[in-house]
Amino acid sequence: MLTLPSIPSLAHEAQALARARQDTLTKPPGSLGRLEELSIQLAAITGQSRPSVARKAVIVMAGDHGVTAEGVSAYPAEVTPQMVLNFLRGGAAINVLARQAGARVVVVDIGVAADIESMDTLHATSLRKRKIACGTQNMARGPAMTRAQAEAAITEGMEVVNAEIARLDLVGTGDMGIGNTTPSAAIVAAFTGVPVAQVTGRGTGVDDAGLARKIAVIERALAVNRPDPRDAVDVLSKVGGLEIAGLVGVILGAAAHRIPVVIDGFISGAAALAAAELAPGVKPYLIASHQSVEIGHRVVLERLGLRALLDFNLRLGEGTGAALAFHLVEAAARILNEMATFAEAGVSGKDEG
Amino acid sequence: MLTLPSIPSLAHEAQALARARQDTLTKPPGSLGRLEELSIQLAAITGQSRPSVARKAVIVMAGDHGVTAEGVSAYPAEVTPQMVLNFLRGGAAINVLARQAGARVVVVDIGVAADIESMDTLHATSLRKRKIACGTQNMARGPAMTRAQAEAAITEGMEVVNAEIARLDLVGTGDMGIGNTTPSAAIVAAFTGVPVAQVTGRGTGVDDAGLARKIAVIERALAVNRPDPRDAVDVLSKVGGLEIAGLVGVILGAAAHRIPVVIDGFISGAAALAAAELAPGVKPYLIASHQSVEIGHRVVLERLGLRALLDFNLRLGEGTGAALAFHLVEAAARILNEMATFAEAGVSGKDEG
Repeated sequence: MLTLPSIPSLAHEAQALARARQDTLTKPPGSLGRLEELSIQLAAITGQSRPSVARKAVIVMAGDHGVTAEGVSAYPAEVTPQMVLNFLRGGAAINVLARQAGARVVVVDIGVAADIESMDTLHATSLRKRKIACGTQNMARGPAMTRAQAEAAITEGMEVVNAEIARLDLVGTGDMGIGNTTPSAAIVAAFTGVPVAQVTGRGTGVDDAGLARKIAVIERALAVNRPDPRDAVDVLSKVGGLEIAGLVGVILGAAAHRIPVVIDGFISGAAALAAAELAPGVKPYLIASHQSVEIGHRVVLERLGLRALLDFNLRLGEGTGAALAFHLVEAAARILNEMATFAEAGVSGKDEG
Repeated sequence: MLTLPSIPSLAHEAQALARARQDTLTKPPGSLGRLEELSIQLAAITGQSRPSVARKAVIVMAGDHGVTAEGVSAYPAEVTPQMVLNFLRGGAAINVLARQAGARVVVVDIGVAADIESMDTLHATSLRKRKIACGTQNMARGPAMTRAQAEAAITEGMEVVNAEIARLDLVGTGDMGIGNTTPSAAIVAAFTGVPVAQVTGRGTGVDDAGLARKIAVIERALAVNRPDPRDAVDVLSKVGGLEIAGLVGVILGAAAHRIPVVIDGFISGAAALAAAELAPGVKPYLIASHQSVEIGHRVVLERLGLRALLDFNLRLGEGTGAALAFHLVEAAARILNEMATFAEAGVSGKDEG
C-alpha cells in the first residue's frame, strides 16, 4: 500500500516579503519579469523570504521498457545501460550541463534490464541501486507492471529524495529509458483524454512508419489495459514505466520537503502529471524548465498550468532541460538576495505624479 | 571621419567540423536543438571547431539624453549617474547576473551628464572614462549630437573592446541612460519605416499619457531632423544616443575580432540594427539574448533575422538579458567540448534500417 506524503501549503508570508522586497530593489518594479515571479515562487515554496538554491541535484531515474519489442524506438534497448554508464563516467549531456550549473547528478537504477555493476564495477559504485524489476512488461500485451511494483517505484523515488535532503535546495528530474516516450504518451492520453496521435512524437527519432507504429502500439496498450484515469497508480502500472513512477516519487518527496522541483521534458512531464493526480498540492512546487519538441509536452504543461522557461527544441531527456534551467532559477534567487535596494544605493525612485 | 573595421567572413571549416562532431556525441542527432545550433555558430564565428567562451564580459555604456526634458521617462535623469555608481559598487542587477555567469562588468561613461568621479572617488576608479559629451541635446528640437560626436562614440566603443581583447571570448552589450528607449524607438522607426507607435513602448514604466507624449516626441524628432536611413551615422547622430553609438562600436569591434556578441534588449537591439546598417557582415556574429517587453524589439529581431534565446518579460536593460543568456551560450560550447562520443562511451548507435 502506497503512503503519500503530506504536501505543505505555500508559505504566504515569505511570498509576500519576497514580493515587497522586489519592489525596493534598484530597478523599475517588474522590469525583471519572470525572474521576479520565479523568485517569489521560490520564497512561497521554501518558506524563506530570501531563498537560496545553491545546492542542486538532478535525479536521473533509469528503466527499461518491454514495449520496445514492438519497435517503437530508433535505438536498441541495450543503450539504456550503456547510457547509465556514460552518466556514471561523466560523459553524457546531463553531466556536462549539471557540472556547468554546479549541480550533482544522482543516477538511479530503478528498472534497467541489465546488471550495470557487472558492466563497470569501478564506476557503478556511485549508482543508486533501487531496482524493482529488469524493465517493464510489454504494455501492448498486458500491464507494464503490477500495482505493487508501481507503488514500490514511487516509494523508492521518495526515498532517493529523502536520502539527499540534507544537502538539497533545488531538484531537477531526469530520465533514461529507451522507448520511454511511448509509455509517457500513453500516460498523457490516459489522464487527459487527448487522442494518442496528438500526444505522440518521434522520441529519439523514428521515421514516419515508426511513428504510425508507435501510435498504434499506444492505442493498443490503452485498449488492452483500460487504465482508470481517476486512479493514477492504475495508469502508471498499466501503461507507465519504472523510471516514470520513480520520478513521481521524486516529485512528491521533494514537494513534501518544500524543495522546488524543476521538471525536464516529456517523460518528466508525464510523471509530474501523475504526481499532480495523486496529490494536486504539488503543482505550485513545479517549475517547467523547457518546452520539448515532443508534441504531447504542450498538453502536459497546459494541464499542469505551467509555462516553460526555455523553448530550445530539446528532445534528449536525461534532465538536460532541467539542468540548463537551474541557472535561470538560481538567477531569480540571487537577484532577490544580492541586489541593492534604492535606499542602500542612494538611487532616486520613480517620478511622482 | 569614421574608419570601419573589416568584418571577417565566417569560418566554414570550423563550422563544418563542429557540425560533424555534434553528430558523434552520445545523444540522438539534433536532440539538443538550439544548443547544437549555437555551438556550430560559435565555431563559425571564432574559427575554433571546439570553441571556448570561458572569458566573458558585459560592456555597459552609459549616457544621458537631452530629450528627457520632454518628460519621456518615468525616472529623473539623475538616476543615470546613480545607477552607474551602483554598477561600480556591485549592487545592480547586471552585477548579480554577471557574477553568477562568471563575467566581468565593464562600465563605460561615454556621455553621462554628471561628474561620476566627484560622486564616489573610491568606486569610480574602475570606470572607463570615454565621455564624449555630458549627454545629448534634445532631439525633439534638433540633432541629438553632431556627426563628429556620433563617430567619436562609435570609435570609443571599438577601443573599449580593443582594450579587453586579450581576455575576452564572449561579449555582452549593456546600456544605462534614463530616457534611452526614446532614441532607440526613433532609430528603429528611422531604419525600418515602421510607424513610431508600433515601435514605442513604456520604457521603465510611463503611463498612458506618458506613452502618448513619448510617441509624439519621437515623431517630432524624426520630422525635425529628417535622418537619412541610408546613412547610419546620420541616424545615430540626429536621433540616437552616445551609449547607443558606443554600443555600435562595441559590436563592430567584437565582430572584427571574431568575438561572438550577445545582444541585450531594445537599446542594444537598436545599436545592433545600426551596426548591421554600417557593416552587414556583423549579423552572423550576433546572438539575441532575449525578447524584450518593449514592442519595438520584435521589429529589431525580425529585421536582423535573429531569434531570441529567452522570453522572460525583461525590460531592464543594463545587459541583464545578455548576462542571463551567457550561461546558455556557454552550455552550447561545453556540450560540444565536453560530451563523450558514441565511440568513446561504447554506446550503440541508431538502429539500421
